Amino acid sequence: MIPIVCIVGASNVGKTTFLEQLIPALLERGYRVGTLKHDVHGFEMDREGKDTWRHRKAGAQAIAISSPAQIAIIRQTEGELGLEEIAGRYFSSEDLLLTEGYKRSHYPKIEIFRRVVENSPICGPKDNLLAIVTDENIASDTPCFGFDEVAKVADMIEGRFLKDRKRPGLLVHLDGKQLPMKEFVQDFVIGGIIGMLSTLRGWKKSGKVDIQIRPGSE
Amino acid sequence: MIPIVCIVGASNVGKTTFLEQLIPALLERGYRVGTLKHDVHGFEMDREGKDTWRHRKAGAQAIAISSPAQIAIIRQTEGELGLEEIAGRYFSSEDLLLTEGYKRSHYPKIEIFRRVVENSPICGPKDNLLAIVTDENIASDTPCFGFDEVAKVADMIEGRFLKDRKRPGLLVHLDGKQLPMKEFVQDFVIGGIIGMLSTLRGWKKSGKVDIQIRPGSE
Repeated sequence: MIPIVCIVGASNVGKTTFLEQLIPALLERGYRVGTLKHDVHGFEMDREGKDTWRHRKAGAQAIAISSPAQIAIIRQTEGELGLEEIAGRYFSSEDLLLTEGYKRSHYPKIEIFRRVVENSPICGPKDNLLAIVTDENIASDTPCFGFDEVAKVADMIEGRFLKDRKRPGLLVHLDGKQLPMKEFVQDFVIGGIIGMLSTLRGWKKSGKVDIQIRPGSE
Repeated sequence: MIPIVCIVGASNVGKTTFLEQLIPALLERGYRVGTLKHDVHGFEMDREGKDTWRHRKAGAQAIAISSPAQIAIIRQTEGELGLEEIAGRYFSSEDLLLTEGYKRSHYPKIEIFRRVVENSPICGPKDNLLAIVTDENIASDTPCFGFDEVAKVADMIEGRFLKDRKRPGLLVHLDGKQLPMKEFVQDFVIGGIIGMLSTLRGWKKSGKVDIQIRPGSE
């Protein structure tokens, strides 16, 4: 699965503004970046009266709209999907997933902190906190960066998660003949498969996976 | 992959209105329905100024927002994704995918036809046309239904695509031990894997697939 880094902090502390600077800093370094916003209240993405909106109101569990430049999907879920499932299923083509929110997850976090918003950081070292981005002088064992040090934060993320990843191995045989795949495509396929399987009862992390599919008729 | 039926017809002939009736008729029969709108011009799904909109403007290749009741994803693409890829990657949990548009695909089609909009149907029997829904008396070898016969159209779709599907077989071993999966989950996993692999050079349809994944380190 791709690395996940959660950008956390109090409401209105500037998480989105920080992401607006961090994303291009990572793109410049040649990485593909996905983002995921945690919305606890529910959101309205589509526009009333649009065709896709009408499909959804008619009861379709999942609706999509595809154009030459982009695709959008809205899927109804029974309860919130896990971060692993989302990353594996929808972000298998990216190098890194940055989340806005998900402070309760166990993934590495960067907290945005301003004392005018909150008295003290909402995360401690036990929360897998990588760094604090702040305009304050705070006493902390966690590395601190100023709001003008986005490039340093990008360097840290690159060094920790993006360089020298040892790639897992993938072999796909079709009727006994190996299907050639570039590294990028291998990562995509592995990410997709592991993302699906990891949601199942009986899954454990570092195992060898062998899959056989035998054709049926539709 | 799940069955795909394309609802086609001239602009403003009533495709969305027909889908608004067909979707609940299929839901009533116990099927999970996904829809896909073909948009040749490009669309704006997100709202200006929202956090996800700002992530995308900052350059993220894929952005998502997740809440307890739904998840939405917007992904930038280089050219339009194929119907197979979209179905395999994003609709593996549904029983049926209904598209609005995609008249040039080779999938089975239902045409909505009104002579006040167009002189003659846009599809012929060569276009894999299953049925015409119309308020006209037209001479055609293709079955015709009136706009009040949505239940009959749903029956036809059910009979052709949803009943008695012979399921393909799936076996997943983790460290040599079989991972148990319900039929629904098997379909989900097979759909996801075939959806990814079918976009690759060297893929052909009815082969046996064997996949080995060996763990790396991240």
